[in-house]
Amino acid sequence: MIIDPEYRIADIDKRIYGSFLEHLGRAVYGGIYEPDHPQADEGGFRTDVLGLVRELRVPIVRYPGGNFVSGYRWEDGVGPPERRPRRLELAWKSVEPNRVGTNEFARWARQAGADVLMAVNLGTRGVDAARNLVEYCNHPSGTYWSDLRAEHGYREPHGFRTWCLGNEMDGPWQIGQKTAAEYGRLANEAGKAMRGVDPAIELIACGSSYRAMPTYADWEATVLDLAYDQVDYLSLHTYYGNSDGDTPNYLARTLDMEAFIREVAAVCDYVKAKKRSKKTIGLAFDEWNVWYHSIEPDKRQTPWQEAPPLLEEAYTFEDALLVGCMLITLIRNADRVRIACLAQLVNAIAPIMTETGGGAWRQTIFYPYLHASLYGRGTSLRPIIHSPRYDSKDFADVPFVEAAAVHDEEEETLTLFVANKDADSSMPLECDIRGFGDYAVVCHLVLESEDPKASNTAARPDAVVPHSGGDAANDDGTLRATLGKLSWNVIRLRRRREPSLP
Amino acid sequence: MIIDPEYRIADIDKRIYGSFLEHLGRAVYGGIYEPDHPQADEGGFRTDVLGLVRELRVPIVRYPGGNFVSGYRWEDGVGPPERRPRRLELAWKSVEPNRVGTNEFARWARQAGADVLMAVNLGTRGVDAARNLVEYCNHPSGTYWSDLRAEHGYREPHGFRTWCLGNEMDGPWQIGQKTAAEYGRLANEAGKAMRGVDPAIELIACGSSYRAMPTYADWEATVLDLAYDQVDYLSLHTYYGNSDGDTPNYLARTLDMEAFIREVAAVCDYVKAKKRSKKTIGLAFDEWNVWYHSIEPDKRQTPWQEAPPLLEEAYTFEDALLVGCMLITLIRNADRVRIACLAQLVNAIAPIMTETGGGAWRQTIFYPYLHASLYGRGTSLRPIIHSPRYDSKDFADVPFVEAAAVHDEEEETLTLFVANKDADSSMPLECDIRGFGDYAVVCHLVLESEDPKASNTAARPDAVVPHSGGDAANDDGTLRATLGKLSWNVIRLRRRREPSLP
Amino acid sequence: MIIDPEYRIADIDKRIYGSFLEHLGRAVYGGIYEPDHPQADEGGFRTDVLGLVRELRVPIVRYPGGNFVSGYRWEDGVGPPERRPRRLELAWKSVEPNRVGTNEFARWARQAGADVLMAVNLGTRGVDAARNLVEYCNHPSGTYWSDLRAEHGYREPHGFRTWCLGNEMDGPWQIGQKTAAEYGRLANEAGKAMRGVDPAIELIACGSSYRAMPTYADWEATVLDLAYDQVDYLSLHTYYGNSDGDTPNYLARTLDMEAFIREVAAVCDYVKAKKRSKKTIGLAFDEWNVWYHSIEPDKRQTPWQEAPPLLEEAYTFEDALLVGCMLITLIRNADRVRIACLAQLVNAIAPIMTETGGGAWRQTIFYPYLHASLYGRGTSLRPIIHSPRYDSKDFADVPFVEAAAVHDEEEETLTLFVANKDADSSMPLECDIRGFGDYAVVCHLVLESEDPKASNTAARPDAVVPHSGGDAANDDGTLRATLGKLSWNVIRLRRRREPSLP
Repeated sequence: MIIDPEYRIADIDKRIYGSFLEHLGRAVYGGIYEPDHPQADEGGFRTDVLGLVRELRVPIVRYPGGNFVSGYRWEDGVGPPERRPRRLELAWKSVEPNRVGTNEFARWARQAGADVLMAVNLGTRGVDAARNLVEYCNHPSGTYWSDLRAEHGYREPHGFRTWCLGNEMDGPWQIGQKTAAEYGRLANEAGKAMRGVDPAIELIACGSSYRAMPTYADWEATVLDLAYDQVDYLSLHTYYGNSDGDTPNYLARTLDMEAFIREVAAVCDYVKAKKRSKKTIGLAFDEWNVWYHSIEPDKRQTPWQEAPPLLEEAYTFEDALLVGCMLITLIRNADRVRIACLAQLVNAIAPIMTETGGGAWRQTIFYPYLHASLYGRGTSLRPIIHSPRYDSKDFADVPFVEAAAVHDEEEETLTLFVANKDADSSMPLECDIRGFGDYAVVCHLVLESEDPKASNTAARPDAVVPHSGGDAANDDGTLRATLGKLSWNVIRLRRRREPSLP
Repeated sequence: MIIDPEYRIADIDKRIYGSFLEHLGRAVYGGIYEPDHPQADEGGFRTDVLGLVRELRVPIVRYPGGNFVSGYRWEDGVGPPERRPRRLELAWKSVEPNRVGTNEFARWARQAGADVLMAVNLGTRGVDAARNLVEYCNHPSGTYWSDLRAEHGYREPHGFRTWCLGNEMDGPWQIGQKTAAEYGRLANEAGKAMRGVDPAIELIACGSSYRAMPTYADWEATVLDLAYDQVDYLSLHTYYGNSDGDTPNYLARTLDMEAFIREVAAVCDYVKAKKRSKKTIGLAFDEWNVWYHSIEPDKRQTPWQEAPPLLEEAYTFEDALLVGCMLITLIRNADRVRIACLAQLVNAIAPIMTETGGGAWRQTIFYPYLHASLYGRGTSLRPIIHSPRYDSKDFADVPFVEAAAVHDEEEETLTLFVANKDADSSMPLECDIRGFGDYAVVCHLVLESEDPKASNTAARPDAVVPHSGGDAANDDGTLRATLGKLSWNVIRLRRRREPSLP
Repeated sequence: MIIDPEYRIADIDKRIYGSFLEHLGRAVYGGIYEPDHPQADEGGFRTDVLGLVRELRVPIVRYPGGNFVSGYRWEDGVGPPERRPRRLELAWKSVEPNRVGTNEFARWARQAGADVLMAVNLGTRGVDAARNLVEYCNHPSGTYWSDLRAEHGYREPHGFRTWCLGNEMDGPWQIGQKTAAEYGRLANEAGKAMRGVDPAIELIACGSSYRAMPTYADWEATVLDLAYDQVDYLSLHTYYGNSDGDTPNYLARTLDMEAFIREVAAVCDYVKAKKRSKKTIGLAFDEWNVWYHSIEPDKRQTPWQEAPPLLEEAYTFEDALLVGCMLITLIRNADRVRIACLAQLVNAIAPIMTETGGGAWRQTIFYPYLHASLYGRGTSLRPIIHSPRYDSKDFADVPFVEAAAVHDEEEETLTLFVANKDADSSMPLECDIRGFGDYAVVCHLVLESEDPKASNTAARPDAVVPHSGGDAANDDGTLRATLGKLSWNVIRLRRRREPSLP
């Protein structure tokens, strides 16, 4: 492997370490918000959960959906709580009490140190509701909707900068699904009106809900053809699972993710060429994760509960390893992927789990996400990797080792994220880092597990945690380390400093 | 003629004897509802009219339109009556006072023993209003719209099971007409959201407004192609008239009705094949009747009256005979037609007429509808008929005799509905019913008239009434009867029972 | 030149001298309406401005937009002023206080002696809002919206006869832009519902926003194909400018206007042929003027002001000359152009300018508009003109002299509007008017200026004004006059009358 500071991919947009909180299951109610909890603050938000979110340094949180947003009246969630309606929520067949809405969430996100990636409803609603929401959130004052926000207790505008133009509008499951042509037109007109209210915002249009959608690629091309001028980013969504218990094939799925990114970028550039545009459409991988454990149990849930336990994945060690590999993929595509959201943040397909009335803990996937968010800021470098390869059911020539490298030029740190997918043997890492000069290993974190199916639970929250016992060392310009079998490795180096004079 | 219990067409869905009440003319106001009438109940509904409706055993009533529904805000018709707006009603150019709305009608229908076939407005409104109405009507409680229903005095959900996705959306006269593609998409999204609220409901999509529409057949194919998964039934509408006074040709029109049913079924099955679907789309003939007497006089009505006397057909005997033949056609197509609505029920193209402040009477068409509704429940059998035939202006090979047979296996009754269209001579009926064993004629009802143009009026409400003087008899397995010229015959047989021991 | 009373083009529809007042800049607020002004009436309208409008005898005023209307909720502008919302107005990036709305404007227009050419919002709204507005404005009483108007203090219906179905819906700048197919369908359904409320109204569909639009002609054909039955007129819009200072080319642009009219008429007649329709679509040139001086300065305006000084053209003499030529073009096409609106009336691209708190004055373009409006009513006659011609950058064979003739048969007057575009020399006019018999010149008004760039200002409001010193005279059936270089001439003749006996 070779890593050189000159082989730059791109400066990483920190928003690729974003996450997502939907009004779904116990993500909001019973997740971040639980007024009766002993650790709830005066606003009803759990401070223990907030602490875990802060620990992750989440830069941006997508909100309030997801499928939820396609049936949502945002006006239901603002103003005096006692007047807010209880709504039949069709996306997840729940009852939505509207106790948390735009304003409460904005305040929570500020406390969490995160921006809000706001979404408008293009399922049951259109241009007018969208522009009104932008005015309500971002306009300073002196108009109907901005003055109403002030009247609701929020004098300062929220200043949301990035907005989703609906969610997964190609999906037959979506409330108010659209054809590509219908959506392209609606996205263009809604986007134009929203930018009319606040020209500083950036807009994400919906790409396909996943790569296997029957309208994939055509959808992207049609939507961009109709809305190119109003769109800054196109979305990608992907969830992987190991329901057939074929772990090598499961861990190989980052090749699918990589191909997905390249293909969508190609569609964007095809439309760019056709339009002779100077603008390049960025990618927003605004839903990604592992999701399969809870799908069957969720089918047995009674409809119309409030905050039912939905999508509550108990993540295993191997899930965490794949999540790590997906993060590596995002970092390596930092030149095109400017936004990405681990879906989601609390309870529903989430790194953080809570018990209602009880504790909160870190799932296995919490750790690779934490590492990437903390150490993955700076410049993504292109590592030249020679790894043995394997074939799996769906993939050929899968490298056992995947890696990404991030150089923080200001802090003079270099971080390598390296995963070994080999379940049978450890792997020696040898990496030429002469281009960096005098960098020393300051730590080599390892996440590994005897049992690939091990999970963290309320009772055993530390079954799978990283340790700092990796053996990485810089041997005169060659970084050497042992990559344990099925392991996630974070190797941090820093320029050796001359001792400063007292 | 041969009738055999094994030649089953299908179990008859009782909903084929449905009717229709639209906010139109004096159907509701001055029809079923007239608070100042001496026979009005405390809710303002006329008990004499209700009695006639009960007499008909109407299983289901379509409501509130018709063309009316395409401009209707259902919220206008619920809640405190004094707050309900008076609306300019564009479909019939009347003023709608909204004194009767969803709740009052639901209560009236329950008293009448009928289900409600509810329609949503897909003319001026869309997904949101439709799903809200389903929630208001069918969701038990605990959400905004269901709690509002309770607040309006109706704690129990109405539980409407069958719903129309708009009305005649292909018609240029329709408020908010749609192209087939527009409607197919809207029906799909509205239907999906409505089913999201209540998965137990069944949905009827609009077929062509009549067989001669320029977009006929293409409309059906396009709509089903776009909304197949959300649709259970496709609608057919037909009205016949005898404006040129050519009675043989007029009475032959059931051949058109028959062809219409077969053609629409073929389109449904074509789309089913294309989609490799396991679901067969049923037919809902949700508007059918004779309508022509009032068309010219109605053009002279002043617009913007409240409950003007519109579509007030004075039905003749020959109209009743055709209505009988149309009922025979529906029964013979019971394998495909699951719902049908005689349009309408009171005053407007209706079997029941009222005088405002005065009496109520049965029109000529009341009787065949009554007979079919009372005696037409059970299994429809395929009669093999050999009848002399005639040619008319528009039709060739028209059989003089049309018949349907209904076997109630539980009650051990057999009912024959037989029409003789020959104006010149009576016809001997000879029918092999050996397959039934020992069945005896219990009655042979006949509707006939010296004057084919005779009508029932307030002054002479019994000008045309059935008598039980038919001569039908079972002659050792051969049913013999005389079918008077231009006559409607209902021959009822029942298994002869062993005298039960005391 | 020959003018003969038998060479009739058409009776002129007085509405071709219409104007336009949009909620834009200081057109309404600080224009016609300024409650703090010393000359404001009790309703807040400036009587000095009203006086100037009355002087122009404006027959009809388009209202309230323009681009403004595509984001407008008309309900915001009616009812108690203290409850009217302040809106963020996206078309002109201003704040709309809604102090003037439909009712105030209707009252002002009545005082001005003008009809209102009302527009509905087809950008963010649709069928329902449109039909409700027609009901609010035109329905006598007894329904929700008409009674609300009465409750708002306007018992009598406004009776607006002519309506615009949206504004410039083909323009990418438009809030809620539509494709031709989308707009055609929407215009048809909205138009149908609006006519359902009031069958007496006439409807104008949007044509292309200008002749150079990429969808020009196809737009017109598609829209009419989808909405022919509901449409009476198709709109044309044109603004000309002289930003490159090429006056001969600038003054030649009436050839573009002429071609535009002929082309749009051809598209209308093409669709008429296809539909075998008996109805001819008229043309509504409902925005036309010179507009270029203010475009650059306006870009430097801060957004979200209330009534900012936008589009405040200071018109020069040469602009007035082109405006005169455009009026000649409209008169000469009076057989097809039935409505035209000088855009606009006060402050924004307007003949009348005001100072907030100060005076009001007539711009140069006021005069040709005044002359045409006052003297241009009657029958448009086809003048046969032989004029020397020139070539310019964009046009070939441009006649130096353009003329229109209007015969008022009742008053027995003949008016010639004649422009000389030659900047270098005056031109002798010789016109055979023998067909009129004994007509004498009663006045020859001339608008000319030493400086083609001269403007009228608050300080010098009379820099460019017409004088009556023209030398026209009838020399035994030949009208002779000198047309000064760069001059606008209005020659009025009247039949000589026998002295009446005392």
